[in-house]
Amino acid sequence: MTINIIPHPFDPLSAAEIEQAISIVKKAHGNDLFFNIVSLQEPRKAEMTAWLQAPETAPRPKRVAEVVVIAQDGKVFDGLVDLTSGTITKWDLLDGEQPIITMEELQLVEHVVRTDPKVIEQCVISGIDPKDMDKVYCDPWTIGYDKRFGSKKRYQQALMYYRPDIDDCQYQYPLDFCPIYDAEQKKIVHIDIPEVRRPLSRVPPVNYHPAGVEKKGGYRTDLKPIYITQPEGVSFKMTGRWMEWQNWKFHIGFNYREGIVFNNITFNDHGVERPIFYRLSLAEMVVPYGNPEHPHQRKHALDQGEYGAGYMTNSLSLGCDCKGAIHYLDADFPTRAGGVRTIKNAICIHEEDNGILFKHSDFRDDSVIVTRARKLIIQQIFTAANYEYAVAWIFHQDGTIQPEVKLTGILNTYSMDPDEDTKGWGTQVYPGVNAHNHQHLFCLRIDANVDGPKNTVFVNDAVPSDAPVGSPENPYGNAFYCKRTKLVTPAQAKTDYDGSTSRSWEIANTNKLHPYSKKPVSYKLVSREVPGLLPKPGSLVWKRAPFARHAVWVTKYRDDQLYPAGRHVPQTSGEKPVGIDAWLSEPGVADENIDNEDIVLWHTFGLTHFPAPEDFPVMPAEPITLLLRPRNFFENNPVMDVPFSYCRVPSQVRDGVPGWDKYRLVDRISKLAFDEGKEDGEKKEKEVNGCKGGCCGK
Amino acid sequence: MTINIIPHPFDPLSAAEIEQAISIVKKAHGNDLFFNIVSLQEPRKAEMTAWLQAPETAPRPKRVAEVVVIAQDGKVFDGLVDLTSGTITKWDLLDGEQPIITMEELQLVEHVVRTDPKVIEQCVISGIDPKDMDKVYCDPWTIGYDKRFGSKKRYQQALMYYRPDIDDCQYQYPLDFCPIYDAEQKKIVHIDIPEVRRPLSRVPPVNYHPAGVEKKGGYRTDLKPIYITQPEGVSFKMTGRWMEWQNWKFHIGFNYREGIVFNNITFNDHGVERPIFYRLSLAEMVVPYGNPEHPHQRKHALDQGEYGAGYMTNSLSLGCDCKGAIHYLDADFPTRAGGVRTIKNAICIHEEDNGILFKHSDFRDDSVIVTRARKLIIQQIFTAANYEYAVAWIFHQDGTIQPEVKLTGILNTYSMDPDEDTKGWGTQVYPGVNAHNHQHLFCLRIDANVDGPKNTVFVNDAVPSDAPVGSPENPYGNAFYCKRTKLVTPAQAKTDYDGSTSRSWEIANTNKLHPYSKKPVSYKLVSREVPGLLPKPGSLVWKRAPFARHAVWVTKYRDDQLYPAGRHVPQTSGEKPVGIDAWLSEPGVADENIDNEDIVLWHTFGLTHFPAPEDFPVMPAEPITLLLRPRNFFENNPVMDVPFSYCRVPSQVRDGVPGWDKYRLVDRISKLAFDEGKEDGEKKEKEVNGCKGGCCGK
Ligand SMILES: [Co+2]
Ligand SMILES: [Co+2]
Repeated sequence: MTINIIPHPFDPLSAAEIEQAISIVKKAHGNDLFFNIVSLQEPRKAEMTAWLQAPETAPRPKRVAEVVVIAQDGKVFDGLVDLTSGTITKWDLLDGEQPIITMEELQLVEHVVRTDPKVIEQCVISGIDPKDMDKVYCDPWTIGYDKRFGSKKRYQQALMYYRPDIDDCQYQYPLDFCPIYDAEQKKIVHIDIPEVRRPLSRVPPVNYHPAGVEKKGGYRTDLKPIYITQPEGVSFKMTGRWMEWQNWKFHIGFNYREGIVFNNITFNDHGVERPIFYRLSLAEMVVPYGNPEHPHQRKHALDQGEYGAGYMTNSLSLGCDCKGAIHYLDADFPTRAGGVRTIKNAICIHEEDNGILFKHSDFRDDSVIVTRARKLIIQQIFTAANYEYAVAWIFHQDGTIQPEVKLTGILNTYSMDPDEDTKGWGTQVYPGVNAHNHQHLFCLRIDANVDGPKNTVFVNDAVPSDAPVGSPENPYGNAFYCKRTKLVTPAQAKTDYDGSTSRSWEIANTNKLHPYSKKPVSYKLVSREVPGLLPKPGSLVWKRAPFARHAVWVTKYRDDQLYPAGRHVPQTSGEKPVGIDAWLSEPGVADENIDNEDIVLWHTFGLTHFPAPEDFPVMPAEPITLLLRPRNFFENNPVMDVPFSYCRVPSQVRDGVPGWDKYRLVDRISKLAFDEGKEDGEKKEKEVNGCKGGCCGK
Repeated sequence: MTINIIPHPFDPLSAAEIEQAISIVKKAHGNDLFFNIVSLQEPRKAEMTAWLQAPETAPRPKRVAEVVVIAQDGKVFDGLVDLTSGTITKWDLLDGEQPIITMEELQLVEHVVRTDPKVIEQCVISGIDPKDMDKVYCDPWTIGYDKRFGSKKRYQQALMYYRPDIDDCQYQYPLDFCPIYDAEQKKIVHIDIPEVRRPLSRVPPVNYHPAGVEKKGGYRTDLKPIYITQPEGVSFKMTGRWMEWQNWKFHIGFNYREGIVFNNITFNDHGVERPIFYRLSLAEMVVPYGNPEHPHQRKHALDQGEYGAGYMTNSLSLGCDCKGAIHYLDADFPTRAGGVRTIKNAICIHEEDNGILFKHSDFRDDSVIVTRARKLIIQQIFTAANYEYAVAWIFHQDGTIQPEVKLTGILNTYSMDPDEDTKGWGTQVYPGVNAHNHQHLFCLRIDANVDGPKNTVFVNDAVPSDAPVGSPENPYGNAFYCKRTKLVTPAQAKTDYDGSTSRSWEIANTNKLHPYSKKPVSYKLVSREVPGLLPKPGSLVWKRAPFARHAVWVTKYRDDQLYPAGRHVPQTSGEKPVGIDAWLSEPGVADENIDNEDIVLWHTFGLTHFPAPEDFPVMPAEPITLLLRPRNFFENNPVMDVPFSYCRVPSQVRDGVPGWDKYRLVDRISKLAFDEGKEDGEKKEKEVNGCKGGCCGK
């Protein structure tokens, strides 16, 4: 690995660049600023594309920092700093828009809550000794939007909990009231109190830490270690933040908001670097809760826009979060006061064996080929208060990209009385603990570049022939085909999932037809976890998270249209359209042409979570995944040149000779699980028989 | 591993038992018999359950062999042999029913085809030199059903191909005519010839074998090996065919038809062995092709009922098919002539690391727990002519069972002229090669036993509240809930997937409510690859593969109702109901009670495959999967006692002491991908920083 002195235009701002931007802003606007965002403004696409195509002759895109600050008086400024010239090129005062909430801002709330007399009063009503306020905890959440407080000032809601002991899990002891925190005054300005009170639960704790497990009988002792090693090194190569692996090449970025961002994803197809996606990321998410009772409607975190998947990302640990031969990348962010903090090991990168890549045996002659698959995983884990999200981007050798999100962590909980009716809006997962229904909806942003910038999206539905059974066109009734519908305007492109037709979407380059199939080269979006937004049309969530209204949207590419719930998400009311809704509300945009244009596909996927006691006190990871697959893109199977584990062709079978020895990538380390040597000769025989045609090569 | 001398009643017939059954039958009915089936008749459930509950006192279920033979005159007998008493207890002559087709029967067809003068004549018309008949190949397929030939006699259709060279792939050179083979006469009795002929393609081959890859530029050289080792041994234990792993216990069977069969799956929940499923298997599958033109409608193989996923299973190889520390089980089958053949390594069993099992960090104090997951994989791979199916049964520590099917192998192909219009029924995947649209639909049979034999199935739909936005019941419009519909009769239980409600099915025991949630203990079927049968209602496929008409069926348990397309599948016409359709047609059955009864759930899942050139000449594996998840089954998270990789509780953070050392299962073998030691001190620093709170333990 070499360290680039000059950052690549796609690189995140370095610590030095963050410091430089902050210093320029402080010089111009004083030291008393809170820095919410200091992040790369990605190069304008036209400039960047020109430079990528001719780096020797085209102008190198400038390094520009987006800077968002909150002044002492609560005023918010959104600016741009040109790091090349050292000048501020934009400095806008925002009106009624709240920038992203930083972890440092959140940390303050708990301290305020614990000393607020009105909160203490409510704690006492809940049954807490006022001397025990150090046992009171709060998760400060975005207020979402509450019309009583509006958007002009910065508020958070404090979801209240209690820990009988410092090592207990507070989510097991929720309190029933909800203070509202004014971030500017650093004060509690209101408390939402239910009419019927629920006293603090006194049920003994269930804990997932060792002392808790000891009490329940201790740890299982029957797990033997599994080790994964690559003694000859890994198969990927990194140059700065450029990854090369198995014909893939792409740049790995990272920002405060989306976390991992991929740029300029290409695939080397027999010497030709074919573009696939210009940019790929999770651009937004929303977690709406389904309990209609006030103030639970406020629980619908847009975690990326409101807190940031980068800001909340974990520092990952070798041998714990990551197993095998791991490469890490760090992340640099501003501190609120204007320093720099580094999250070490923000991204982990490794390869995994992936079972069989392809196999075929000919039944008539026992000729066989079996080739094992490898995958490359680029991963981050972020903690959004109670939940953790492990986001893995899995690259396959065959050109498939598989984003995967694993949900773990802890349920958001609310208090309930023994035998209180949850009315179907939640589940009692532990005595006194009501976990409300919710959804986890993610928006994948695909800035398509399938064999070039001009792309077209089609909806593909698997449907039976219209011709009735017994008709001349369909005598046996078995006819079916793929019905393709071209999406020609953003208005028409708002499409939903249809499970009954196994609907998929195809990002095609209609300018390039496959030589055999005569179909356009394409990448197909195969996504089956597409629950649709359950909050109704016109609801607060529907307005604030417009991307979630449909499974797929397609827009014409425009610089800075990155975030489909808007750039500044906290406290948007949804009264004015935001994000993708706002973009499409611009005159003419909804009906503009997106056929054979530079387009962006937005895909909302996720799951609906009806909690169960198995999810408590900590959730076994639940995966959600989807595929982006090349179809009619490659001339034929693009992985035939992956070294096989075993190959014996018909002529070798006929001639009684062993399979191919040359080119094999054989694993001589695998072994039988049990030592069966005790029974005379059996071990040897087993190994021989395990190797049809001498396959295992032992 | 100990070898049981007395087979367990669930064990497949041993080689000795197969020999015994054959010998008894030969003694009674002569030597001139072809043995199509000699397989365990599984114990009657009532007897077996009684014995499992009291093996000391209840009578041990007898060993009974199902035997199906074809006599020299084509007569088919379906019998039972009591191996304990050595007597034939049933010997029925079948009328118009054809038993499963064995590989040995199939092997014969190609020899007959090559010497048949009418076939040679057609080959010459196709452009083949009659001296090259050794280059003509055929895949003998079940005829499906062709009313011209009916069901009384045994036929196969011969899908014709050509190999210019013995090592070429015949699927690239399909011929356009289709001989019909009479299995009794061992003769070609008819040839289906299209009106417009398509001469043999002379396009150069594309081959996936090393000589072919060499021609295209050779193998990639940048893949470094990955090794997976378990130096302390595996974490599972096998006693005979009983598996114990991470609280799971079950019996692993195997038969000619379904391949892997699980019996008596239980989960040890704090000392109590709780039953989950009495039996679990893939009971049938169908692969309908969507080209309506004669004779392609005959391509809709019910591979398990027509050929058998056991009979077609591969002998697996260590280090090729299977990686790590592997345990194998063999399979014994009769030969056609009445001997025994053993497929060595028919089943492979191994553990894999599965990433993060659960994780939570508290943002306020950096306390953290991270625990890695393990999975157990029990796998077979079978070859159905051109296709291979890798069927993996994945057991998770948290009680989840995940069946997974990976599709690989080669597309079924038909010839086409250059630039012939495929009319949407197929794709030209290579010049002259038309791969027709098709589906792969599998039927999972779940003999439920969720905390006892009496179970009830519910359909769960995630739906918004009926109350409009702004109403008192739903002021913010965010209300949603899980709508549960009880399935009370088999007629009502025929249900389809609904993607718009993220539909799932719940197998519940309504006699046992969870102490906290008050919901019945249950296993939830979460399946998203549920395309529905595309051949229309009333079509041949719809009649012959009734299970595929709906995503879910529920029937009351009855002995011998194992196969949802019927027991003898080849050449069923569908004129009379077969399989599950026949069972529900019995008087009163469709409307009988299935609420709180011993029930079986049948689930059809799979995918619709519109071929693309990437699938040719051999397909990169494509996975299909689903989950069976415990919900309201365990008191709480059942994996808290899995040793963690790292755990530091808040009091340890407060006291400035390291995390828990006791109980850790730490991986000290993982390492950084790149040796960064060259830059002075960096390597050391990286490792320290990679270990938040000293996590990695280095
Ligand atoms: Co959730
Ligand atoms: Co297929």
